[in-house]
Amino acid sequence: MSASPTSQPDRHGRLATVTVEGRRRYGLVAERGFVDLSTRFGSAWPSLREAIEAGALRRLVEEAQGLPADVPLEALRFEIPVSAPEKIICVGVNYPDRNEEYRDGQAAPANPSLFVRFARSFIGHGTPLTRPRVSHQLDYEGEVVLVIGKAGRHIAERDALDHIAAVTLADEGTVRDWVRHAKFNVTQGKNFDGTGAIGPWLVPFVEEGQIADIRLTTRVNGETRQDDRTSRMTFGFRRLIAYISTFTTLVPGDIILTGTPTGAGARFEPPRWLVPGDVVEVEAEGIGRLTNGVIDEGAP
Amino acid sequence: MSASPTSQPDRHGRLATVTVEGRRRYGLVAERGFVDLSTRFGSAWPSLREAIEAGALRRLVEEAQGLPADVPLEALRFEIPVSAPEKIICVGVNYPDRNEEYRDGQAAPANPSLFVRFARSFIGHGTPLTRPRVSHQLDYEGEVVLVIGKAGRHIAERDALDHIAAVTLADEGTVRDWVRHAKFNVTQGKNFDGTGAIGPWLVPFVEEGQIADIRLTTRVNGETRQDDRTSRMTFGFRRLIAYISTFTTLVPGDIILTGTPTGAGARFEPPRWLVPGDVVEVEAEGIGRLTNGVIDEGAP
Repeated sequence: MSASPTSQPDRHGRLATVTVEGRRRYGLVAERGFVDLSTRFGSAWPSLREAIEAGALRRLVEEAQGLPADVPLEALRFEIPVSAPEKIICVGVNYPDRNEEYRDGQAAPANPSLFVRFARSFIGHGTPLTRPRVSHQLDYEGEVVLVIGKAGRHIAERDALDHIAAVTLADEGTVRDWVRHAKFNVTQGKNFDGTGAIGPWLVPFVEEGQIADIRLTTRVNGETRQDDRTSRMTFGFRRLIAYISTFTTLVPGDIILTGTPTGAGARFEPPRWLVPGDVVEVEAEGIGRLTNGVIDEGAP
Repeated sequence: MSASPTSQPDRHGRLATVTVEGRRRYGLVAERGFVDLSTRFGSAWPSLREAIEAGALRRLVEEAQGLPADVPLEALRFEIPVSAPEKIICVGVNYPDRNEEYRDGQAAPANPSLFVRFARSFIGHGTPLTRPRVSHQLDYEGEVVLVIGKAGRHIAERDALDHIAAVTLADEGTVRDWVRHAKFNVTQGKNFDGTGAIGPWLVPFVEEGQIADIRLTTRVNGETRQDDRTSRMTFGFRRLIAYISTFTTLVPGDIILTGTPTGAGARFEPPRWLVPGDVVEVEAEGIGRLTNGVIDEGAP
């Protein structure tokens, strides 16, 4: 799997958590290669989570600008950008027409549907997604991801964007039949180990234009399946941060997956589930492209 | 709030995470006082989570038996027993008659309903629960809690109990109207900061008799509201561990809240929500008694 940056312009810098020869590193991903910032700043900030807490992402990008590459991009194994976030909160049903996929005739919801995923349900860019042994209904959901930088509770919508440290992408991969395995809640279908991906990197958040109206697409084997713009989200970024912080204190490193456009595999007749060998690409303007293959879960 | 042990027999030892004069400690809670084990074993196991990973809970109890108390029980502030678990997984609808509370006429479910809570939605024994500013529908749910000791995926029911390190109790406190605030999922109603409690301590798990058929009761201001036995659970402990491990790898320190008997405040006509000044007690044979008051969330 290629770890090359996309051809998109790189205005704000790309900070990734990676493994190089078995060791966890963070640094800048640039055309010239990977600038290892953990060797230079690891004592102050052992991981990107601490750098986020310190409000240091933009400084890291600036420090890296003049430095030579330490590692060729081909030698990187990408990890999820924040290794052990306190929370990963996911938003359901958040683009127009998406409700129709459920075919239940209900009106659009008044508040966002939220669920939680564990970090171990995600892998990084370039690592294959795992189709579980107990179900072959592995589906994709391309999403824009917010990473919280500043703690807060009861955050007002007008202040909400001040709490964002960075943006990235996700394939919020879902095991469809297990989403409805029990009477309530989607927990199990959303938490199979290694069924989703986050990355490839963090783009420091500087201004609202980075997320307000960007195109988000998901392709499977090169075929576009999801294609929409963030300006059409049912619950916008400000509303999501304000709503979530009504009940829980957001802290640096928290991750919010902001919902997916229509066009998941479950929507097709018959459904088009992912199979081993497929390649899923989630791309958004100004953020990058997250690419993952698919393999079967190994034998017990 | 009294931090005294209950009058129940203490056969297996009680290990708590506490704050003493502003410092986090772990140790044995005995009639004679608190035996501080973090001063003695903190370099090997900085917290009870590391002791759980090392399979060392029973050894900690044994080491503490001959030691004098370091701190009187009155000086302890109890914290949730595992401070930063990787996962807190909660089971809905898991005792007979409980389905009737939902009055929706549906049959009993085929699989357990699961949802996730963040650690910050819980406080320890003796600290008051917080009634949120945005809702006064704070409810109680007494539960038996499993703490995982041995990692595993695809765990067979016959092996499931080998993965338990300890048991404790929870008030899986719930903000009822926010459980149905969105179209799907109970996440927000289950995750208001400080609305639930876990504790007071871990009782190392030695044999099935500790949990197979124990009485679980919840009292509010001394009045019994919930009263059932674990032998009547819809999905038993073995089934829960096996089912959950179908999709996620359980790891040491993971916490499973195993569901609540009928009798939550939502069941009454009119509903009996908790109000400031109430005292909630969750008690189970052989584990202990978890006691928490109720206060209002402070002004913004």
